[in-house]
Amino acid sequence: MSITKLFEAAKAASPAIGRASTGQKNAALEAIARKLMDNKTSVVAANQKDLAKAEHDGIASGLLDRLKLDDKRVEGLAAALRDLVELADPVGEVVRGRTLANGIKIQQVRVPFGVLGCIYEARPNVTVDIAGIAIKSGNAALLRGGSLAEETNKVLVDLIQQGLAESGLPKQSVQTIDEFGREGAQALMQARGFVDVLIPRGSAKLIQTVVTESKVPVIETGDGIVHIFVDASADFSSAVPIVVNSKAQRPSVCNSLETLLVHESVAASFLPKVAKALEEAGVTIHGCPQTAQIIACEIATEEDWATEYLSLDLSVKVVSSLDEALDHIAKYSTHHTESILTNDIANAERFLQEVDSAAVMVNASTRFTDGGEFGFGAEVGISTQKLHARGPMGLQEMTSTKWLIRGSGQVRS
Amino acid sequence: MSITKLFEAAKAASPAIGRASTGQKNAALEAIARKLMDNKTSVVAANQKDLAKAEHDGIASGLLDRLKLDDKRVEGLAAALRDLVELADPVGEVVRGRTLANGIKIQQVRVPFGVLGCIYEARPNVTVDIAGIAIKSGNAALLRGGSLAEETNKVLVDLIQQGLAESGLPKQSVQTIDEFGREGAQALMQARGFVDVLIPRGSAKLIQTVVTESKVPVIETGDGIVHIFVDASADFSSAVPIVVNSKAQRPSVCNSLETLLVHESVAASFLPKVAKALEEAGVTIHGCPQTAQIIACEIATEEDWATEYLSLDLSVKVVSSLDEALDHIAKYSTHHTESILTNDIANAERFLQEVDSAAVMVNASTRFTDGGEFGFGAEVGISTQKLHARGPMGLQEMTSTKWLIRGSGQVRS
Repeated sequence: MSITKLFEAAKAASPAIGRASTGQKNAALEAIARKLMDNKTSVVAANQKDLAKAEHDGIASGLLDRLKLDDKRVEGLAAALRDLVELADPVGEVVRGRTLANGIKIQQVRVPFGVLGCIYEARPNVTVDIAGIAIKSGNAALLRGGSLAEETNKVLVDLIQQGLAESGLPKQSVQTIDEFGREGAQALMQARGFVDVLIPRGSAKLIQTVVTESKVPVIETGDGIVHIFVDASADFSSAVPIVVNSKAQRPSVCNSLETLLVHESVAASFLPKVAKALEEAGVTIHGCPQTAQIIACEIATEEDWATEYLSLDLSVKVVSSLDEALDHIAKYSTHHTESILTNDIANAERFLQEVDSAAVMVNASTRFTDGGEFGFGAEVGISTQKLHARGPMGLQEMTSTKWLIRGSGQVRS
Repeated sequence: MSITKLFEAAKAASPAIGRASTGQKNAALEAIARKLMDNKTSVVAANQKDLAKAEHDGIASGLLDRLKLDDKRVEGLAAALRDLVELADPVGEVVRGRTLANGIKIQQVRVPFGVLGCIYEARPNVTVDIAGIAIKSGNAALLRGGSLAEETNKVLVDLIQQGLAESGLPKQSVQTIDEFGREGAQALMQARGFVDVLIPRGSAKLIQTVVTESKVPVIETGDGIVHIFVDASADFSSAVPIVVNSKAQRPSVCNSLETLLVHESVAASFLPKVAKALEEAGVTIHGCPQTAQIIACEIATEEDWATEYLSLDLSVKVVSSLDEALDHIAKYSTHHTESILTNDIANAERFLQEVDSAAVMVNASTRFTDGGEFGFGAEVGISTQKLHARGPMGLQEMTSTKWLIRGSGQVRS
């Protein structure tokens, strides 16, 4: 089949999945979860093929781990689909409405986008996650999961389509375009009229390519050069655990801490304490010259301030004031998450107002920027753009709206 | 000054306008309104220059009328700014919020985008409209108003900047890039990191160019091939005035009717009635062969169904069923506004659900798709895309959100 036929099939499937009842969509999610559980062996076998090829090609071990699906991970994917069943259906929700002076009733209601595109890399779990979110939000999905996971994605999409068909929904509601390789990804970015919104998930490079090349609307999910500012009035007993948690609890994710800014008035007392705790967590510190006078550390370069390590590395800088902290953040932040640790109301409020990021925090770990933690139940990604969605995106963010207008013969004068 | 300097100045101005109090922003709007009233003569004189040049270049009369500003129109612009003063400030509005189980309080609040770009053609009123909306919503604005209105826009932006400065707001909050010509428009579309959202207003060609070439996020404001379906159960006494109002009240705007679909069971009785009323309003009918058997009309070509006339022309087609009407709409609609005239609940609900347009109506004139009619007070345009905003856009649609997270030492487990 040509890729245009696949696009047309997605568009043709979208009204049916868009109008499906919540019960029908939930039945499909349950059916897909069952298919996954009943076919663990074939999923894992396909994944072994991808893994063998990737190992043969000398792919890095971090990537291999993302690529890998074992029995337990497949069970996790099925469980995530069942969790989606419990979530409220966003379609049909009334966002706002009123009766105009002339008696016309207007209502803004949530409707599916139509067709979601997703471009990602070497993460077969995203195939099931996005398919599930698309189904629950009434959207058709076109998935480009990358050549590394092609065998696994093929089996997964086949099982998803079986589950859809069993529940009376069009199986073309979820399709993979992996077979078309890079040209498929290019075609997806050009597919105006077929794809309503395109979501890239993966490396900064992948996201930049999609954002700059796509002719269909994109939601940018971004990398996080995340900052914490330890203010002069910070409570050390909570500041140390917050810094360690933000950096070390799961360093490979976008909401983990990359740069710690410390007010100079507390640098001499705070840095040794936090450095000890960070060392115990295995963190390597890259400090500014002032930091290096207080604790043992590597010397940070200009590049360090602009680096998303995604590892147990942390940049540390001593600043003379809240203003200097805000300036540093304005210069290097990727507008994902920043947190201030303080007991000063005025400084907390200034930080909340002036930091231009998707999530701005006071006295909390940056790891809380997360759809699950926010109570969204499912997360499509974390948007670092300002249009449509900002911060963690759940089912609601996968919908558009339309205005329903009910009159009784009114004309405009 | 180079265009990059202008972009940098807009970005530098955006925090100050973004944090300005409602009172300060309203004072600026009042000051600009006063400047316009006090300098009507110089605005009109500059406009005369643009008009003379346009006439000399043989510009069409419709365009000349859009370009023209006389005393009365300048007064209208000042009045529109004063109307903005009365509207609620969207910045700081809490969209949703909750306290998590761990005691963390999360709030999603409205914040300005930062810098709005606008590309439009030969409409100096848009300069003042967009500047006012940008100021009230806390955004800086970069305006590309086209060479035809260059002299007028220069004077208008100068007055706007004087009003901003008098109110203690940075005058670079509103800037024109007209002096850079087409290259300026190109630069605006490429200005990632400087422009947060770009809004094209004007011809379908202009909008398509911006949508496909821009590397910054765009909100598409679209043309309207607007349909009304007169169902078998329609009440003729309201259907005739609704059709006439939708077509003829202001044919040059995007929410005016372009194609009338009539159920075959009432075609013989309805068409003569509506044709008579349309004729009295000066409307020319382009009918399908079945229509032409019932009333005198021109014969519609395939092209007519896909044409936004924006004039006193109307395509008319007889259809055999609601399904045929829905199919025709799916094929030719630009997803702006469609209306069904019916007394049948099931058909009304199907139409509301299945028509994929920004505004879908029952028994009302399509002319009601309008920010003013919806009670938004100000209108940036009508979005025909699904991302971020759909339908009439007011101040709220000119904002993004951010999450404020207030903890007391929480870490993630």
